[in-house]
Amino acid sequence: MPTAPAVVLLSGGLDSTTALAICQRDGLEACAMTFRYGQRHQHEVNAALAIAQRFGVTRRVVVDIDLRTFGGSALTSDLAVPKHASDEEIGPEIPITYVPARNTIFLSFALAWAETLGARDIYLGVNALDYSGYPDCRPEYIAAFQQMADLATKAGVEGQGVRIHAPLIHWTKAQIIAEGSRLGVDYGLTTSCYDPSPEGLACGACDSCLLRKRGFRDSGVADPTRYQLRS
Amino acid sequence: MPTAPAVVLLSGGLDSTTALAICQRDGLEACAMTFRYGQRHQHEVNAALAIAQRFGVTRRVVVDIDLRTFGGSALTSDLAVPKHASDEEIGPEIPITYVPARNTIFLSFALAWAETLGARDIYLGVNALDYSGYPDCRPEYIAAFQQMADLATKAGVEGQGVRIHAPLIHWTKAQIIAEGSRLGVDYGLTTSCYDPSPEGLACGACDSCLLRKRGFRDSGVADPTRYQLRS
Repeated sequence: MPTAPAVVLLSGGLDSTTALAICQRDGLEACAMTFRYGQRHQHEVNAALAIAQRFGVTRRVVVDIDLRTFGGSALTSDLAVPKHASDEEIGPEIPITYVPARNTIFLSFALAWAETLGARDIYLGVNALDYSGYPDCRPEYIAAFQQMADLATKAGVEGQGVRIHAPLIHWTKAQIIAEGSRLGVDYGLTTSCYDPSPEGLACGACDSCLLRKRGFRDSGVADPTRYQLRS
Repeated sequence: MPTAPAVVLLSGGLDSTTALAICQRDGLEACAMTFRYGQRHQHEVNAALAIAQRFGVTRRVVVDIDLRTFGGSALTSDLAVPKHASDEEIGPEIPITYVPARNTIFLSFALAWAETLGARDIYLGVNALDYSGYPDCRPEYIAAFQQMADLATKAGVEGQGVRIHAPLIHWTKAQIIAEGSRLGVDYGLTTSCYDPSPEGLACGACDSCLLRKRGFRDSGVADPTRYQLRS
């Protein structure tokens, strides 16, 4: 029996790469969807493609969308990315790196591709604990998207809807890293930094770097990340 | 007091143009969002821009997305658009002109733009009666999208969510035309045909043309559409 396809949202980061490994562990053919969305750093897309290749993914798409049209985020505009001396300084408020409706846009495209492929599953690497305060990383958001998706598509209406999997949603960064390492993920291929050097070295001081560092520290797995600053 | 902005999804068709007129009647500043999504006909985008101009819309965006990446619809690929001799032949099944997850993708972008503009309202021209069998035109779909949107965004989480308006959802095409005409809409600017001639003349035989023709007939409003065939 041929393996059933599943769409994986693959950003090139630690979380989505772990979601890809879990999709394959579940016995599905992972089909990778990556977005080029006016990020300041092409290196994220390159990382995603290198990861897809390492995992033997044969069906992959890079979707060009330009969130810069709308402005509103330090990740896609010229606003400065906030830096901190340690992860203790990261507050509970929604940060300016928030991109309006980003996961909603990404999941909508994943839904379209899933329907076209005949895929019944979508995997994404959101998590609610180390989530940097983004509203569209919470379990209640994913559940609401699922409900909407069941009503949105021909497949859903005909009773063969698409299931959204967010396997990391309740895990800490340390648990994600531990599980991914168990599944053989090479985290040296992944990139998390919001503000890397032109050579792709991580800044070590943005929210994302600090959460990643803490994750490796807490998991006991050696951190393969190449940082500009050593703290 | 300055007028509050609202996002209107404007395709250049009869329904979305009526939604734009209703948005302005509601006293809001209509900001028009149009998609160039691998349609075979640039004339839809041109119609949308001409309509926006006629309505005095100053903020408008054209978003490029390529649904052809995914295939799966006669509207975006080389599949033949089905033709009928009369609207009696249109069945209840979902037609092959269905584009996977289209309204979900469009509403997701509208949500992102609304949040960036500080808009509290989105208008779209879906309707459930003459809807050609698309699942994402039904009231239960719109309600589910609303619920998801309330959880997806910073604005929603902070209690100032975006309201999705689908004012035409329970109207017949004839009611839409009658109301739009009362509001001064010039339907000669709008385009509905799935398969127009290179000069932009309507085929008169696709589902969309047949529903539009019947709408004018039933409303008693003169049909300003230029058809290739006279039936």
